Amino acid sequence: MNVFVIGIGLIGGSLAKDIKSTQEDVTVYGIDSNDTHLAEAKELGIIDKKATYQDLQLADMVIVSIPVDVMVTEIPKILDAVPEDCVVFDVGSTKALICKTLESHPKRRNFLACHPISGTEFSGPSAAINDLFRDKTNIICEVELTAFKLQEKALQIFQAIGMRIRYMNPEAHDKHIAYVSHLSHISAFMLGKTVIEKEKNERDIFDMAGSGFESTVRLAKSSPAMWTPIFKQNKENVVETLDEYIQNLTAFKELLLQDDYEGIYNEMNNTNKIKGILKGIPLNKK
Amino acid sequence: MNVFVIGIGLIGGSLAKDIKSTQEDVTVYGIDSNDTHLAEAKELGIIDKKATYQDLQLADMVIVSIPVDVMVTEIPKILDAVPEDCVVFDVGSTKALICKTLESHPKRRNFLACHPISGTEFSGPSAAINDLFRDKTNIICEVELTAFKLQEKALQIFQAIGMRIRYMNPEAHDKHIAYVSHLSHISAFMLGKTVIEKEKNERDIFDMAGSGFESTVRLAKSSPAMWTPIFKQNKENVVETLDEYIQNLTAFKELLLQDDYEGIYNEMNNTNKIKGILKGIPLNKK
Repeated sequence: MNVFVIGIGLIGGSLAKDIKSTQEDVTVYGIDSNDTHLAEAKELGIIDKKATYQDLQLADMVIVSIPVDVMVTEIPKILDAVPEDCVVFDVGSTKALICKTLESHPKRRNFLACHPISGTEFSGPSAAINDLFRDKTNIICEVELTAFKLQEKALQIFQAIGMRIRYMNPEAHDKHIAYVSHLSHISAFMLGKTVIEKEKNERDIFDMAGSGFESTVRLAKSSPAMWTPIFKQNKENVVETLDEYIQNLTAFKELLLQDDYEGIYNEMNNTNKIKGILKGIPLNKK
Repeated sequence: MNVFVIGIGLIGGSLAKDIKSTQEDVTVYGIDSNDTHLAEAKELGIIDKKATYQDLQLADMVIVSIPVDVMVTEIPKILDAVPEDCVVFDVGSTKALICKTLESHPKRRNFLACHPISGTEFSGPSAAINDLFRDKTNIICEVELTAFKLQEKALQIFQAIGMRIRYMNPEAHDKHIAYVSHLSHISAFMLGKTVIEKEKNERDIFDMAGSGFESTVRLAKSSPAMWTPIFKQNKENVVETLDEYIQNLTAFKELLLQDDYEGIYNEMNNTNKIKGILKGIPLNKK
């Protein structure tokens, strides 16, 4: 099987590693606009061969793991170039725009809209790790628009690398993911900003910050190049989550200003139930 | 050496474990208002004997690890009860009020104001773990008000369990810690609240939340009984950090509403330097 990975970073590279370790007779071809990353991926053994769009005629499967704004222009071209029995799937953190963009593409049935929910705060081919997707959820949108045999081909891979599948429409995906992923990133970035602005003396942060701060701010290490287009594409939902988050923070501040410590206790106590909800989420540690 | 631990939870229990494993001839006495916790600590071998304030006359060292509002009423009584050569130190997350409360206590020289910056989101004696303090910072306030020999006695323990020491005045401590610890907790609690409110169907959170959300919201599992008095005592600083955090979130939202994606990219890119700053913070995993 010839698997093409377009964009060999954390996600594309980790998928390539898992596919190589779970499938027999696989050749992984890499395409990347960044020549250094491509060479690094080859050297690390993540890909077997460097390739270009001309080689896509050889593809049995294409994984598109590039920023979501570039997907919108590239996936139509990729679909044009692949053979009839090739499945092309993406891994983007937004689903509505890409699904809308491709709705009348003559090869829409070759495309499977996916969002494997996993990652770390690191980027590039050197961030690729084995087993990143084990026990994680892969959200598939508009599955009925993909040819059944090509769904099967992709699902066999997702199963082999340990993913759970959940089906959802693109609008529901973008709305939910704004809460459980996009808002977390903004919350972490702005927490990092607030602390850096105040603590000009970085030594103070280093000395006083415990593992609690590190954990809460971890996502502020994420790639701006990847996240800017995600926030752009999901602007409406993200603004809504931000409004609610800011409202909740402001209400907490008001309780403090009014010395309503019973209210503050209750706010925290009611949120403690997140313990039970989170129990099932496996953590990735690098 | 007779070490008394008053409040056998995550911090008091972990200190007891480390002291037992690094010091010879230590007997750990436990005092706790919660009889179940006390029995549990005895059963787990964290303490050797249950005790009361009457036994404090035997103490060489007293560790006070109780909520910061209770410290203000209890530490004066504890100081009254201990012998002349006993050092009493606290582990509270606020330092100004306790230092002010004790400033004219006749045994002020027996007290060392400490804040070992370490912890997990769990509580109670069963949360106590070994080596929780290794390579972590212990902030000591108003060291000059503690008898030199008693400073030495406590420092020998801090050194043995692997802590780095940093000296600071109580007001500076409370101001800095509001940014690197207290704000992180509120940020996590309100993130948890925002998501729980929206996602009434908890199954959706569970399915869609990745390790990024789990990490950002981790501190929302913390104990409201411990945190409410911390926010109360550090109200002024906490309100200031919350104001700045809310301002930064609002500005980010405005950039989104204005479609200023270059601005959004820059906000994230400028905060990415947190990577370098955090590199030195060791993580505790339970």
